[in-house]
Amino acid sequence: MKRLFTHTRILTMTAEEEPLEAHAMLVEDQRIAWIGPMEEAPIADEIVDLQGRLMLPGWVNTHGHAAMTLLRSFADDLPLQTWLEQYMWPIEARFGAEQVHWGTQLAVAEMIRCGTTCFTDMYDHMDEVAKVVETSGLRASLCRGVIGLGSQEERDWKRKEAVQFAKDWHGQADGRITTMMSPHAPYTCPPDYIEEIVTEATRLNLPIHIHLSETKGEVQRHVDTYGIRPVKHLEVLGVFKRPTLVAHAVHVTEEELEILLQYDVKISHNPGSNLKLGSGIAPIPLMLAKGLRPSLGTDGAASNNNLDIMEEVRLASLIHKGNTQDPEAVPAFTALKMGTCYGAEALFLDQEIGTLEVGKKADFITLDMNRPHLRPMHDLVSLLVYSASRADIQDVYVDGRALMRNQELLTIDEERILFETDRTFQAVAP
Amino acid sequence: MKRLFTHTRILTMTAEEEPLEAHAMLVEDQRIAWIGPMEEAPIADEIVDLQGRLMLPGWVNTHGHAAMTLLRSFADDLPLQTWLEQYMWPIEARFGAEQVHWGTQLAVAEMIRCGTTCFTDMYDHMDEVAKVVETSGLRASLCRGVIGLGSQEERDWKRKEAVQFAKDWHGQADGRITTMMSPHAPYTCPPDYIEEIVTEATRLNLPIHIHLSETKGEVQRHVDTYGIRPVKHLEVLGVFKRPTLVAHAVHVTEEELEILLQYDVKISHNPGSNLKLGSGIAPIPLMLAKGLRPSLGTDGAASNNNLDIMEEVRLASLIHKGNTQDPEAVPAFTALKMGTCYGAEALFLDQEIGTLEVGKKADFITLDMNRPHLRPMHDLVSLLVYSASRADIQDVYVDGRALMRNQELLTIDEERILFETDRTFQAVAP
Repeated sequence: MKRLFTHTRILTMTAEEEPLEAHAMLVEDQRIAWIGPMEEAPIADEIVDLQGRLMLPGWVNTHGHAAMTLLRSFADDLPLQTWLEQYMWPIEARFGAEQVHWGTQLAVAEMIRCGTTCFTDMYDHMDEVAKVVETSGLRASLCRGVIGLGSQEERDWKRKEAVQFAKDWHGQADGRITTMMSPHAPYTCPPDYIEEIVTEATRLNLPIHIHLSETKGEVQRHVDTYGIRPVKHLEVLGVFKRPTLVAHAVHVTEEELEILLQYDVKISHNPGSNLKLGSGIAPIPLMLAKGLRPSLGTDGAASNNNLDIMEEVRLASLIHKGNTQDPEAVPAFTALKMGTCYGAEALFLDQEIGTLEVGKKADFITLDMNRPHLRPMHDLVSLLVYSASRADIQDVYVDGRALMRNQELLTIDEERILFETDRTFQAVAP
Repeated sequence: MKRLFTHTRILTMTAEEEPLEAHAMLVEDQRIAWIGPMEEAPIADEIVDLQGRLMLPGWVNTHGHAAMTLLRSFADDLPLQTWLEQYMWPIEARFGAEQVHWGTQLAVAEMIRCGTTCFTDMYDHMDEVAKVVETSGLRASLCRGVIGLGSQEERDWKRKEAVQFAKDWHGQADGRITTMMSPHAPYTCPPDYIEEIVTEATRLNLPIHIHLSETKGEVQRHVDTYGIRPVKHLEVLGVFKRPTLVAHAVHVTEEELEILLQYDVKISHNPGSNLKLGSGIAPIPLMLAKGLRPSLGTDGAASNNNLDIMEEVRLASLIHKGNTQDPEAVPAFTALKMGTCYGAEALFLDQEIGTLEVGKKADFITLDMNRPHLRPMHDLVSLLVYSASRADIQDVYVDGRALMRNQELLTIDEERILFETDRTFQAVAP
């Protein structure tokens, strides 16, 4: 099956910052087979006219907890530890497979509407999450996050569950699902438990995903307990010998960034969540200056409170300029890379997704540029980063398959999801 | 004509943070005549069913330069002075009435779609702006901004033009237009020129609108030139004896805030613009703690790059939490007040707009809450501030008249506007 997408502007997110004008893209089955000017377009089985639209790679969300959509607007304007310990953890303890199923369905509906084609999920009841990914058609990197504060027995079954999930689902759903091993955070996992998880990750040849230095208090308590800062701690435990993706990295020193760079550790910057929880502002300009390539994550909807990577792109492009009083701190095109190709790198999927190039998977979105807030069109990259929003997204394709066309969701039943999420939340409501 | 809006949730933005559930609102001609529970709803000539929607006062935008939409994405990621002097001012000098007309039309199309019912404009060719306000049905507080760096002759005609405009249009368009006098900024107006403008404002009994302390460099140059900081400078010149609205106030000391409080000076906080230009982050939590009630402005679309007050509400609610590492710095409801009732106060229109109360003008918007990113509905204020976006806005009413219904613009020709803005920009393109 060859499908030709015609008359479009294409922002490939390769080196070139200028979109290709009046171009076409041929998709053969799941992959991009050809990109070129309209007049050279090859024959195809089907033609999709994208006149007036801008095409770019789908957004990649590199940190989140999808089912936490059920807790959106449940508790706000509170410090991280209070919010976690008094609000989130008690109600999450009542979550069963059904809550995770419908919470993830709700997240997936929102993410497709927001143009996300690949997301990361660290949560519990992960078989439910994987099944939702499978049927929705999205791409995802999934991990069963484990907290090692309980009994030896609890630690053991959690580790086994995480291993079983990672083995069962890696490469499933036509390769759209990949898995990672995930010790939740240095402050929720004793050192020997982190080492156990690293051993399992090595055995399975999978990456590690872990929260890192989200708040100042957490880092201070770490130093008080272990006498070293969290990055050094993880290095000593051998975590970075695995391909690793750390989430947050708000309170990191220049020395710690050097260690992350040395091991090519990937970073998920979560500006919305970090701002809302008062965690602080990560040193993104310094990371960029050192050659790190931070990606973007929404975190869970309970701390954001949405799953919109375009908003994270906007925040990443704006807040560091204001914070450093340098209008060149994070240029528009860099922010776009954080939301696309750096995201693919962060999930170790950059051979397959993150840019629009021949041979890569056909994961892309289109935006309708025919809107008053997107005129005049002096600079499409600027419009995309500073002026557009999720509501401009029209089409979402993953593996060459349409998940949304003209803002209509094609793989999930949105009306039922809205109904079921309310019902399943009520079943565990306090 | 009595029109009853039924089956709606109403967030009145009076003291109560909880929306009224299953309520109705009666609008008689231009004003709110009754608000109460559905079962007590009075007879009306027309009924508008708003099932599933949330109603709240329209957004108030307290600082901007509407016609600068023509320069959206024209020059980005540059410091304020370079951006102004090398890019904005040279091309703006080529703007004529036609550019201002269509630039403002484009701005108005975007603002209505974003749920703004009242905006502020400081620009040139203001008769064109006023005419667009008149036909579009929006409410606006308008001023001819004057820069006093030219010859005596230029200073004089600009002053006279500003006075003439303010006299001609104050109270026009059924009272939807009010005017102000506007010396552009302390760094663009010599002290005696500011005094002249204040004299005119006193004579006309109108407020003053002025830029204040947007960048660190500008404040430093002010201190180097005058030996005092900008707030003291304006106090000495008698500006604050008039009702005054200052835009930005990013670099203000606690002592300066005390002066602003003493004179009840209104503040327009422009977080998007201040971040994007690298100007910095205004001390909003300190202002709030002192009892100041900052409002929100988008600034021009060239420095934002959109005219979306909901985005400014989001930014105001997020960035100060991150910047001060205090998740309670600007609570969600406070951010909403900044975008509505504090905005009305900033334009000296709080007797007429800013809340939904009997006797006030019927300036309101509705949002469709039936969306995946707005579920579950644990807290509607939280959803509005942290999760919703302009694209959820369905209806926009000013003076009881629909400017947008079900996302269809009713008073302006959007298609023509998109065409004409491209054409008029090309006529002055470099």
